[in-house]
Amino acid sequence: MTVLVLTSPQDVTADMVVVELHERGVPLVRLDPADLPGDADLSAEYVHGDFHCYLSAQGRMVSSRALRSVWVRRPGEPAAHAHGTSPWLSAETGQALYGMLYSTTARWMNHPRQAAQARYKPWQLRIAHHSGFAVPPTLITTFPRVAEEFAGRYGRVVVKSLSGPPRTEPPVSLPTTLLEPDTDFTGVAAGPTLLQSYVPKRADIRLTCIGTRLFAARKASADGQVDGRFGDTGHAWEPVEVADRIARPVREFMELAGLAYAAFDFAEDDEGLWWFLECNQGGQFGFVELETGQPIAGAVADWLAAPPLGAPL
Amino acid sequence: MTVLVLTSPQDVTADMVVVELHERGVPLVRLDPADLPGDADLSAEYVHGDFHCYLSAQGRMVSSRALRSVWVRRPGEPAAHAHGTSPWLSAETGQALYGMLYSTTARWMNHPRQAAQARYKPWQLRIAHHSGFAVPPTLITTFPRVAEEFAGRYGRVVVKSLSGPPRTEPPVSLPTTLLEPDTDFTGVAAGPTLLQSYVPKRADIRLTCIGTRLFAARKASADGQVDGRFGDTGHAWEPVEVADRIARPVREFMELAGLAYAAFDFAEDDEGLWWFLECNQGGQFGFVELETGQPIAGAVADWLAAPPLGAPL
Repeated sequence: MTVLVLTSPQDVTADMVVVELHERGVPLVRLDPADLPGDADLSAEYVHGDFHCYLSAQGRMVSSRALRSVWVRRPGEPAAHAHGTSPWLSAETGQALYGMLYSTTARWMNHPRQAAQARYKPWQLRIAHHSGFAVPPTLITTFPRVAEEFAGRYGRVVVKSLSGPPRTEPPVSLPTTLLEPDTDFTGVAAGPTLLQSYVPKRADIRLTCIGTRLFAARKASADGQVDGRFGDTGHAWEPVEVADRIARPVREFMELAGLAYAAFDFAEDDEGLWWFLECNQGGQFGFVELETGQPIAGAVADWLAAPPLGAPL
Repeated sequence: MTVLVLTSPQDVTADMVVVELHERGVPLVRLDPADLPGDADLSAEYVHGDFHCYLSAQGRMVSSRALRSVWVRRPGEPAAHAHGTSPWLSAETGQALYGMLYSTTARWMNHPRQAAQARYKPWQLRIAHHSGFAVPPTLITTFPRVAEEFAGRYGRVVVKSLSGPPRTEPPVSLPTTLLEPDTDFTGVAAGPTLLQSYVPKRADIRLTCIGTRLFAARKASADGQVDGRFGDTGHAWEPVEVADRIARPVREFMELAGLAYAAFDFAEDDEGLWWFLECNQGGQFGFVELETGQPIAGAVADWLAAPPLGAPL
């Protein structure tokens, strides 16, 4: 039974998992959808109620009957490297590849249908509520007066992007930013704005969940630092225990979201409470493993190597 | 309790349903996401485990607590008409609008998560198998020799696009086409190709499913016509009974796909058997209603007007 890894050749995090799969003697095919067709090929037959497909890449062939799991890491745009590429060829190739893979009984980390839903941050907040996390009060609005009232109510408020930074060249960063007390909210009318009650934190927490296995890491914050992703805090990521009051909502969240893998970000306040900030279904884990020594790549490999579900679709 | 209709102002099919909702006295808000922000506004608060949002468009306001259902018809790109529009503003606005709506308990026709999956034609074929439809033998391949072998096995074979025609200006059409006996399959290596065993048909069938209500229409084919969407057959759409051997798989398909609305296309062969060709989760129904007098818009209105689920998310 074979594992299919959909990612680009430059993905060093995937390399870490590939090594672990090799050590376990698990066959795998690594494919960048950008190389299809040309360096890779596919075929799928739907005949008389039966279904059989196979995929060929880098000299290896995998059949749908031998497909154990699919890991969607950093796949390229289908057909991007193909001769005569075009948006239409990408659409045709994406239909063929993913439509065929959706037809198998393979387990997904993560199924693109669930991944797409999990990217919606407002929906994450609601699922986080349902799961039992502490979530900082949050507002998303295009009404300047509502924004002003919210900021007045909570005092210290941060502003964040909903969708991440714009995709510009050169890239720009959009760190979470603490608002000044005299902020003018007129501009809120020009675009939906996410405001969140600021959590004074003593540490950032990154919790990686693979199936039901949890790995949490903690990095002490620098004084007054708002966004832990930017600037050196002078501290390193260190492994930290996951209390049951966090483990339960994490598992509930994963279940409600239908995810096999996710990276959660929390802010740890002065009383040690972990506040849910966001969940990234495609979040990196390489930097955590390198700093903490936690066997995350191994846990991913274990999950991918487990037997397929057998249940149809 | 209010119905939210997400569509463009030019959508005359939506107009038909809006009339039906008005006749039933059901409040509705019609919104084109392209008009947000600017002509429409939104606000959502996630505070202390509670969630409240409201949406304002065309002088009407709807609160999440009063939101009965969401009909996703032909929504524009979020923020497309906004002052200073950009891909980033569209991404931010889409996150805010859909993320907020996903957080409600409203019923969806169709939920974008399910709609996205249902667009994959190869997956449709597999679900059609599971549901118990007759499905013509189908191949999707990048291997010229496999295509040649398939065509040889089934004799008369049609070729179809997987993703529909390219989006070019002026638009081009890509009708389903019967292959010549001496077809050269070399080009299959350049892009995944869908071949299907040809069903000699005496009629096209369009079956519209709304919840559990089915409306089927039949149009006799012209001699030798392959793709019923192109060219006048000299016949009109007429209502036709749905046999139980079709109704059961339709309901099974809707359940497996998680859809509330879908338009199915079948080919009726000389023995009266309906062969599954495809399912369009966003298919038109206006032309069927106009020709057959079947009350499809009324059925959509009935479905949208039913009470919300109450269950969280």
